[in-house]
Amino acid sequence: MRVGKGLDTRRSIIDQALRLASTQGLRQVSIGLLAGAAGMSKSGLFAHFRSKEQLQLAVLREASDRFIATVLAPALREARGEPRLRRFFDGWLRWETTEFPGGCPFQAASDELDDQPGPVRDYLVETQRDLFDSMTTLARVGVEAGKLRADLDPRQFAFEMAGILFAFHHTHRLLRAEDAEKQTRLAFEALLVRSRAR
Amino acid sequence: MRVGKGLDTRRSIIDQALRLASTQGLRQVSIGLLAGAAGMSKSGLFAHFRSKEQLQLAVLREASDRFIATVLAPALREARGEPRLRRFFDGWLRWETTEFPGGCPFQAASDELDDQPGPVRDYLVETQRDLFDSMTTLARVGVEAGKLRADLDPRQFAFEMAGILFAFHHTHRLLRAEDAEKQTRLAFEALLVRSRAR
Repeated sequence: MRVGKGLDTRRSIIDQALRLASTQGLRQVSIGLLAGAAGMSKSGLFAHFRSKEQLQLAVLREASDRFIATVLAPALREARGEPRLRRFFDGWLRWETTEFPGGCPFQAASDELDDQPGPVRDYLVETQRDLFDSMTTLARVGVEAGKLRADLDPRQFAFEMAGILFAFHHTHRLLRAEDAEKQTRLAFEALLVRSRAR
Repeated sequence: MRVGKGLDTRRSIIDQALRLASTQGLRQVSIGLLAGAAGMSKSGLFAHFRSKEQLQLAVLREASDRFIATVLAPALREARGEPRLRRFFDGWLRWETTEFPGGCPFQAASDELDDQPGPVRDYLVETQRDLFDSMTTLARVGVEAGKLRADLDPRQFAFEMAGILFAFHHTHRLLRAEDAEKQTRLAFEALLVRSRAR
């Protein structure tokens, strides 16, 4: 097997697995099911991933890489304070709505794994801590640059920002509420206004 | 079979199913798995529920009854405005932390079912719309009683309140963050303060 082709195959399998995880949940991402979807033999797929756990970890790693590339990195290219926070927020909204057929794969995995100890849960928790840390840092840098209130608690800001986006996930994905995005943007705007340096 | 005993058995099965749904997710609540946990034959269990779907519906109905009895009803016995909203909020926090071994079964079901059309999803959506409507009404009644700001949008209040509690679910259940409850209470307090009539 040529290395280039092996990498392409692996990439295409992970891509299909990620779509499956987005709509069906991470638990459904098994070597057997994926082999069917990818038109490969189970043994062929097994050669790439060796276990369901390794496959699930590869899926979460790919999702994490994509989140960094499409949400975090573009935000970091904006000016500190509100522009950076707004770009991150917009990126997350797009991530939830257009990046995957069934919404954020981390959200889908979170409730499946919260009571399932093991390396997949550990890795998921790591990505989610990184997510909260990123938002905390965006807010802290805004404070340090004098753009956000000096007495703003950056961790509390991150918590409230995450809550707004979780409420978007719930009202948009589950309830299919037509004004979910409008309510989400209003809530975030209000959070920015009350966090602004005077 | 005596009717009384049949009802007791049904009740005890639903109770076990609800614990299973809380930790493992609703998808895991199957007649086969539950028969093992309840020490019954699959055919015995089948006589009570007839299908996995009926069993899952019974689980969600029981969860909904309990939420109304332990969260909504006590809130409605408080004075309109903040006391009622605080009681609802405290009830929901307890619901997430002490009522089930794996946290809110609705949260666990939401991401499983958001892309799975059918009567179980339909019923779940109905319970979640009722939940948002209840919070909206609590806020609206607070406005009408002159306790909350006259220009407060009650639906927006409900959206933000839900977001805070979803962020609690995520930071407490998945991240096991020690200060999850503290951050949640701070965020809710700030929401109340900015919603208060002046």
